[in-house]
Amino acid sequence: MFNLPEWTYEFHGHKCPFMPIGYRMGVYAMNLLGVERSKNHEMRIFSEMGIAHPQGCLQDGLMAATGATFGKGMIEKLFYGKVAATFWYPGKGGVRIYLKNGFADSMSPHEFFKLRKKGIEPSEIPEDIRADIIKSVLEASDKELFEVTKLPAFNYNPVKGSFNKAKCEICGEYVFERYLRVKEGKKVCIPCSQHGKAEITLPRPR
Amino acid sequence: MFNLPEWTYEFHGHKCPFMPIGYRMGVYAMNLLGVERSKNHEMRIFSEMGIAHPQGCLQDGLMAATGATFGKGMIEKLFYGKVAATFWYPGKGGVRIYLKNGFADSMSPHEFFKLRKKGIEPSEIPEDIRADIIKSVLEASDKELFEVTKLPAFNYNPVKGSFNKAKCEICGEYVFERYLRVKEGKKVCIPCSQHGKAEITLPRPR
Repeated sequence: MFNLPEWTYEFHGHKCPFMPIGYRMGVYAMNLLGVERSKNHEMRIFSEMGIAHPQGCLQDGLMAATGATFGKGMIEKLFYGKVAATFWYPGKGGVRIYLKNGFADSMSPHEFFKLRKKGIEPSEIPEDIRADIIKSVLEASDKELFEVTKLPAFNYNPVKGSFNKAKCEICGEYVFERYLRVKEGKKVCIPCSQHGKAEITLPRPR
Repeated sequence: MFNLPEWTYEFHGHKCPFMPIGYRMGVYAMNLLGVERSKNHEMRIFSEMGIAHPQGCLQDGLMAATGATFGKGMIEKLFYGKVAATFWYPGKGGVRIYLKNGFADSMSPHEFFKLRKKGIEPSEIPEDIRADIIKSVLEASDKELFEVTKLPAFNYNPVKGSFNKAKCEICGEYVFERYLRVKEGKKVCIPCSQHGKAEITLPRPR
């Protein structure tokens, strides 16, 4: 049976089935790409999750397994509303992994999801119900869980980082240069610029 | 001296000063709001960080301390390029915390940042240099580190979640309802819809 380090549950805040599914997906992605856990800024994850639907917990498992964390800027959402992610590693190409319909279907009648649909938060669901559904995740094989699409030609060019920063000339707070704006000739932060939400920058047509 | 659980460094992937700054900021926010670590979907964090600048590591500390994780959809970026975050907890209002200019200035001549600016990844920086800068973070007082703005009237209405999903009628993959689109009368996922990037939805003017 697959096992997760105890700290992954502590990080996540509760025991549920989708954090472990994400952890397993992350480990599987590393195996498929032939790479180790990322200490710094190596693996990038493009998660197909979105907002305001369940099963996003998966992404905490992805980060915990791979080291491609939100803080380091290594995981982003694509807002497709799917339980899937594409993993990219420099020099290794990419791989997309999707949670199989069959496995999703096998889980959905479980008491855990009946209670979740009633609005009961995961930590309030009885321990034995949660242990039972997590066991089914940890006992499944990678093949039962995941559908894999290898993307050897997938490439990605991360935006180049910069340490440049300056103080906003109105509020005095430090701002990284990319996010400085100009108002009445002063270099200012976005809130002090009072530039409205409507001022959305559209890409130049090509 | 402040101390972080060892697993927080394991989660993050390397030892650096900004993950601990974020952890301390998260603990301070919980103290100011009078709340515990979030097991489920309680605290929300609006981080003012953006892309492609350093110090984002802070956000891994914020998640680790508060339980407001990316996977659970509890932390988002505002893309202002500032080392600051607003913390909201249901029924408790909000608090904004900013890393003081004085503390940022005191850290910036440190050997750690000289090496980072040369492009050396955190885990490649000698252990003693990292231990030294982390010590200065852990020994500082909350007042030396943080500037606080209490926002008792701050309110936030999270988007209501839904378990509804259906299979894309082209690729057959499950899609949460919010992200289904329509193409030639079929309910399809966003990639199968082939709707272009240019089809951006702007908010209705009010």
